[in-house]
This record gives sequence, C-alpha cells and structure tokens, in this order.
Amino acid sequence: MQVTVPERFAHLVEHFPKLPILVQPSGRPWDDRMAKTTFFVPDYMSGRAGVANLAKMPALEVVQILSAGVDNVRDAIPNGVTLCNAKGVHDAATAEMAVTLTLASLRGLGRFRDLQREARWDNQSFSSLADRNVLVIGYGSIGAAIEQRLNGFEAQITRVARVGRVTPVVYGFDELDELIPKADIIILIVPLTQQTKGMVNEHFLERMHDGALLVNVARGAVVDTQALIRTLATGRIAAALDVTDPEPLPSTSPLWQMENCLITPHVGGDTDAFHRRAEQLLTRNIDRYTKGLPLLNVINGEY
Amino acid sequence: MQVTVPERFAHLVEHFPKLPILVQPSGRPWDDRMAKTTFFVPDYMSGRAGVANLAKMPALEVVQILSAGVDNVRDAIPNGVTLCNAKGVHDAATAEMAVTLTLASLRGLGRFRDLQREARWDNQSFSSLADRNVLVIGYGSIGAAIEQRLNGFEAQITRVARVGRVTPVVYGFDELDELIPKADIIILIVPLTQQTKGMVNEHFLERMHDGALLVNVARGAVVDTQALIRTLATGRIAAALDVTDPEPLPSTSPLWQMENCLITPHVGGDTDAFHRRAEQLLTRNIDRYTKGLPLLNVINGEY
Repeated sequence: MQVTVPERFAHLVEHFPKLPILVQPSGRPWDDRMAKTTFFVPDYMSGRAGVANLAKMPALEVVQILSAGVDNVRDAIPNGVTLCNAKGVHDAATAEMAVTLTLASLRGLGRFRDLQREARWDNQSFSSLADRNVLVIGYGSIGAAIEQRLNGFEAQITRVARVGRVTPVVYGFDELDELIPKADIIILIVPLTQQTKGMVNEHFLERMHDGALLVNVARGAVVDTQALIRTLATGRIAAALDVTDPEPLPSTSPLWQMENCLITPHVGGDTDAFHRRAEQLLTRNIDRYTKGLPLLNVINGEY
Repeated sequence: MQVTVPERFAHLVEHFPKLPILVQPSGRPWDDRMAKTTFFVPDYMSGRAGVANLAKMPALEVVQILSAGVDNVRDAIPNGVTLCNAKGVHDAATAEMAVTLTLASLRGLGRFRDLQREARWDNQSFSSLADRNVLVIGYGSIGAAIEQRLNGFEAQITRVARVGRVTPVVYGFDELDELIPKADIIILIVPLTQQTKGMVNEHFLERMHDGALLVNVARGAVVDTQALIRTLATGRIAAALDVTDPEPLPSTSPLWQMENCLITPHVGGDTDAFHRRAEQLLTRNIDRYTKGLPLLNVINGEY
C-alpha cells in the first residue's frame, strides 16, 4: 500500500502517520519510487500529463483525480483500476464562477473594465439578473450549487438534466428544444460525454432568443466553437466562457476580441475554497481505502 | 392637481386616464406648463439639475424622486413640500451590483478582462466568496436584499446598522471597531448622512485586515477618498466601487489605474429591473395622492 499525492497536499502525511505517503513535487514527471503506488492522486489541472505514467505503476488500484470531469483521463485508466473523481469539491467555486460570469456579463463589467483602463466615467444601462429566466443545463451537484446561489436573485430557474424527474422538477435533454427559446440565460454544467459533446450546436444557438446569454462552466467541447463564433458575430446573443475548445484558447481565436464574449481561462474551480474541500475528500477516501471500505465518488458508466 | 413625470414613464398616462399628467421630455430644462405641477417626478439620476426649478412651481405639494438616497436633493425641497424617495425600487439592481462587484473583484474578472484584451490564456488562482466573512454595513432594504443574495454562497454574513437590534442580530455602528478586523469583505450600503459621511476613514481602513475587500454601493462620500487612495497604494486591501467622491471620478484620479481597484460608474440601480419597479411605485403613490391617502416612502428626519 502506497499513496502518492501532489506536493500541495503534503500535509496529508500528518493525518496518516502510519501510511506510506509519497509526496510528488509538482513538475517532476517521474520518480522511481512512484512505481509502488497503489493509490494515486494526480495534481489538480494536470490533465493527460497527470495520468501519463500509470502503466509504470503495476500495483495501482485507485486513481483519485481532483477534478469533477473525468473526460480527459478516463481512457487512460488501466483495466481493473478504480477511478474516483472530485465530485463536490468544486461545487462551491465552480457554481460561484457560473454566477460571477452571469452577473459580470449582464451588468457590463467587461465594458466598465475597459472604460476604467481609459479612465472614463461613462454610465450605461445594463440588464439585471432579477426577473430573468435562467436555464441550468446539468443538474448534478454543481448544478444544484448554482441554483442555491441564484435563489436570492429574484430570477426564475429551470433545471435540465440527462433524464427528467418530478421532485424537484428537472426537465430532460429531450425537452430542450422547447425550453431554450424561453431562457434569457443558459448555464451549461453538464459532464462532457458522447451525448453532450457539441450539444450546443447551430440548432441550439438558433433557438436562443435575441439578447440571451450563454454561460459555459462545463467543458469547452459541450459547445461547437465554430457555431458559437458564427452566432456571436451576428451580435444576436452574448456568451461568458470559463472553458473553451480547445484549451488554451489560441491567441488567434476571434472569441477574444468579441464585445459580446467574456472569457476566463478555466479558473472556475481553482480558488482557495478548493483546497480545503479537496483535502477533506482525500482524507476521507484515503481513510476508507486503508480500511477496505467502499470508496466515495467511484466512476461507473455514465456520470 | 397636475402630475409631471419624465418621458421614460410616459405610459403612466394610460394608468390614470382622468388625471392631468405632463410628460417632460428628457433634456428639456423648463417648460412653462410645468409651473402648475403639484406632484413632481424628476428624472432618474438627474441629481441637482432635476430639482433646480422647484421654486417655479408655486402649487407644488410632492416631489417623488427615483433614487433611494436623498442626500443630493433634500435641501432643494421647499418648506411644506413632501419628499418621497424610491426605497425598494433599486433593491434588486443595487444589491445585485454589490454581489457582482464582490464576486468580480474576488474572482479576478478585472485581471482576466485585461488578459482577454491581450488574447492571453493565463490561469491564476483567486479567492472564493465561499468561507469568507462578509460585513454588510447598512441594513435597510437594500442591505437585506444583499444578504438575501449572499445567502447561497457559503459565506458568513454579519449585519451592521446605525442602531443595533437583536432579532435578527444587527450590530450598531458603535461596534464597528471590533467587527472590521474580522471581515474579509465589507459592503457599504448606508445612506449618506452627517453620521456616515467619511465613515470609512484612515482609522477604519487601518482596521481592515490584509487582503480584505471594500465594496461601496452606497455613496462615494461615505469613504474618505484620499485615505482610500493612500491605503490602496500600499496594496494591502482591495476595493470595488460603484460610487466615488466626487462623481464623475476625474480622469486624473489614481483610483482608475490601481490594480486592486475595480470601478463601475454609479450603475448599481440603473438596469431594466429599475423600470418595472419604479413604475409600480409611481402608480401606487400617484394613486394614493389622487385619493388623499398617506404617501409611501415619505422622508422624515433620519432615513
């Protein structure tokens, strides 16, 4: 039994004095001591590189990643190895970013920041979140956390998930065609799967009404980037994106220069709120692992 | 009886078919028909100019302003004329702006907007609102609306008002010295009065802890601008300001260029949410006026 964790969680060692824990300094790609790893925690946001050496860990039993989405690591997990995600850890920070982008976009913060750079006091009237219809697409734990934050803003919230249900009312993907035209704001927080890849295509965007706002805090590839660029170029809708396809967004992408597009570089989950919550999850799951108990957040099939 | 309203509320005429309502086009300073006004509604954000001609209205009985703060019009109201403010009308939009500025400042939206202008994808970790202590100074209707919006964000909220009370727990101004050092975020939404003018002075700012954030959606003069500039120059705290002293903020003000200062040009209350709510207030108060009922939002003494 050997647990290998990234440097930022070095003090987990103190929680488990009897457990062999290898702390891997960030930026070091391979260390022969890692070969004995049975429970592996790739660094946060390390993507494909973080799981590049799993084949060199013959005793590997568990990979515990620190992101909620598993799309970019899933096919790198060897057969028989359990994959756990960080469901819940990023709820607070990512949901907060969804609301931040929504508010900043609606209330013209991008425009006002540009004016600030020119030292210009030029008040312009923008739209409120109050009285708006918000469609939250992806009603998992982050979707629920987004709803919790939106609750105080006098907006109407409609929930959508892969499969609809009645309590609380969640609509299914198959009802999107009717829901999209009614939404003033659409927030995307679905996992990236075969079903959701390119979900926001030309047809989806055409159904959004004039002046509507698309907020993506899911994965860039949930949106067809070329279709989004074409639609934004008409000025008909606006977008606020914490994720893009590809990432990093190339400096040549027209999205950067569009007045109706606000971009943050995939920082939704990366705040000080992450560290405390990630440490709680790691402590709980390593503890369960050492005791042979069922692990939390095991990824099985669709998620 | 003659009601004079700004052009943007022209369709109030339809609500009161039997009432003489004069619609005043914006930008026209004086129209002799205004002399008969008994119930006057200066245009929103018209400030001193909006109440410059009250002495030419000998029959004037009521001035209904469309802002919550009365500081800049109060001494222009003739003796015997009733002043009503727009308490409640701006709660949604202004509270929303308080949260928008808080989130945008914490989550680095200003920095990311600057990076967007350079087409640079450069992820940096910022602070979450989650887990923070927020001090809301000014617990009137907008203060309560701010709290309502903050409720979903996993932050701790402490309320302060002129006079403390127990249910719900609201601390008094006299307890600020002890509360300020504990706050990660301080949101100002007090009215501008003799007591609150310059309330945020050198002493107040010194008590804020390193890395704390000051958000002002009240009035610029609640903060001692020079003291704020000196404090921000140290980089010790950050600020997000929708109001400044003076307004407009001169292009020579160092605040514009400070990395730890986010500025919007007094647009907190000015959204489409305002129009619907202002129309409701005007309809109710004009109706009460025509029926001789007590008016809503009459300003008497401290407010």
